[in-house]
Amino acid sequence: MGLDYRVRCCPDGLMTDRRHNVEVLDCTIRDGGCCNNWQFDADLVRRTFESLVAAGVDIMEIGYQTSPGVYDEGSVGPWRHCREDDLRRVARDSRMKLACMLDMGRFESVDLRPADDSLISVLRLATYARDIGGAIDILHAAKESGYEVYCNVMAVTACTPQEVDTFLEKLRRSEVDNIAVVDSFGAMYPHQLRYLVRKYKNWLRPDQRVGVHLHNNQQTAFANTIVAVDEGADFVDATVFGMGRGAGNCPLELLLMYLDDPRHDVRPILDLIDDYMALRRDLNWGYNVPYATTGWLNEHPSAAIARMRADSPECLAFYDELTQDRPSPRHHRAEREP
Amino acid sequence: MGLDYRVRCCPDGLMTDRRHNVEVLDCTIRDGGCCNNWQFDADLVRRTFESLVAAGVDIMEIGYQTSPGVYDEGSVGPWRHCREDDLRRVARDSRMKLACMLDMGRFESVDLRPADDSLISVLRLATYARDIGGAIDILHAAKESGYEVYCNVMAVTACTPQEVDTFLEKLRRSEVDNIAVVDSFGAMYPHQLRYLVRKYKNWLRPDQRVGVHLHNNQQTAFANTIVAVDEGADFVDATVFGMGRGAGNCPLELLLMYLDDPRHDVRPILDLIDDYMALRRDLNWGYNVPYATTGWLNEHPSAAIARMRADSPECLAFYDELTQDRPSPRHHRAEREP
Repeated sequence: MGLDYRVRCCPDGLMTDRRHNVEVLDCTIRDGGCCNNWQFDADLVRRTFESLVAAGVDIMEIGYQTSPGVYDEGSVGPWRHCREDDLRRVARDSRMKLACMLDMGRFESVDLRPADDSLISVLRLATYARDIGGAIDILHAAKESGYEVYCNVMAVTACTPQEVDTFLEKLRRSEVDNIAVVDSFGAMYPHQLRYLVRKYKNWLRPDQRVGVHLHNNQQTAFANTIVAVDEGADFVDATVFGMGRGAGNCPLELLLMYLDDPRHDVRPILDLIDDYMALRRDLNWGYNVPYATTGWLNEHPSAAIARMRADSPECLAFYDELTQDRPSPRHHRAEREP
Repeated sequence: MGLDYRVRCCPDGLMTDRRHNVEVLDCTIRDGGCCNNWQFDADLVRRTFESLVAAGVDIMEIGYQTSPGVYDEGSVGPWRHCREDDLRRVARDSRMKLACMLDMGRFESVDLRPADDSLISVLRLATYARDIGGAIDILHAAKESGYEVYCNVMAVTACTPQEVDTFLEKLRRSEVDNIAVVDSFGAMYPHQLRYLVRKYKNWLRPDQRVGVHLHNNQQTAFANTIVAVDEGADFVDATVFGMGRGAGNCPLELLLMYLDDPRHDVRPILDLIDDYMALRRDLNWGYNVPYATTGWLNEHPSAAIARMRADSPECLAFYDELTQDRPSPRHHRAEREP
């Protein structure tokens, strides 16, 4: 067979001289939970936990922690709150770290519980660039409570270069341990992600680790993850079968096959995946054209998600609605000659 | 918005100093026809033709030409044979070239009709490397009949380096106009495709044009197309909504959005795509884990396609069947500690 000889030293590849142990963060329950309001069956969460441990995944983001009163308790499943007793029903101590996400504006520092009392050892806060100051305050409080702390600055493709410089400078001066380049809209082509991974790596302190959290609107989440690894990312996010809102995320199974790292084993994930295929029949995440359209236009996918609930998404009408105020020649073309 | 500033000069991107007019070849009816035995409704083929013309696509591969007697006529639709009267019902003269594929072993030179009598101006022959000599003979005969001639050497990832050198040398000495790097198995990561595009470009004559035909088993068809454009490919294949056997092909809509070339217009494709979404509900092409598994293992997708007809594909059992004779450590791992 001919595959091996084609591995040469050029961009986008695992090159032996740049080999490093990239960490894998699975966020199936957390980000996939955006598809079903975190109403996963506890048995599936337990089997997901055990499969990720067996697969050698480094970190499992098992849901959110949310301050009381933010959500009507009946409208969201337990993984939106990740109370300790719920966690202990599905997880246990293992070599895999357990993480929760905090949403800026939906979590107050006063609700932090000490890390020593929790299965959770990592807290990751999602914020928009404009709220970076308050976000860092919460993460500093979390660090004092004993957690390793991550920051996701969402929708970086909607920031100006000056806004990116500003939040990177604040993060560089902070005690935040890990920072991800986040493509919330699935807007980035590989060269654009490469540029941002390089920028984050250059700007942040050497002891701060850089990762990626990517969406698949334009079918680039996995390929962009390869680029991130190639560019020296320290950790990368993925979900089982790509589960995630709208077009979903980087599929964990593709990532583990690609990394081909003896620390990992894709087989436990494959053993789990028929259940996620059944979930997809109801929840219907994955590539579709309205998601591609918002990704390409660098917009939040919410309009596309609403559109996909229609019997027929009417892709052209959707595109025309989103582009009607955009003065680009490609949106106002004369009929071309036959 | 911040997208523009991220366009910097680095691999995988459209860089102004390397800008060239890459040609787009749509093979929806030809390759997509592998999903439904080319039994497309004539009205859909007609609307596909008109939409591709309006979108500024350069070449439409509208099906195969096949010698009489190869197929039971009742088992395949008309686009497996592309008789002139069928073609004239759905297509007309336009600035877009019309192409047919020939399968090595299913077409004899004696069945060539003169290009002057046909709407077809391009014949593209698909062959395995071992049959390259006979393939070139047919293409030379086709060129004498007035056609522009293309060659797809399938499954290049299953060739040894020596086999690749051998067929490239024969093509270099031939009158074949255009040659595609073909990832039949969806096995290639971006750096591997980059290496092969570079090799084909270096090896073939400057007047011979190099393209790519890529499958999406590992969700890399579109990202690999970006790499091919970046590496100087002269033409790239795509299909509407990625329609194609198994995991499908590079989606035309993503490609046109990416190229952002005023010669193209994605709107007519979007106008067509709701019909293809309806087709997919029956034919079910697109990413799934059995396709990823054969792609990663560098094998033909036929076993995965058969597997996907089951109610539950049992992804782990499928993987274990395909890997049982492979002596790689990752397939025989000890249980890891918790």
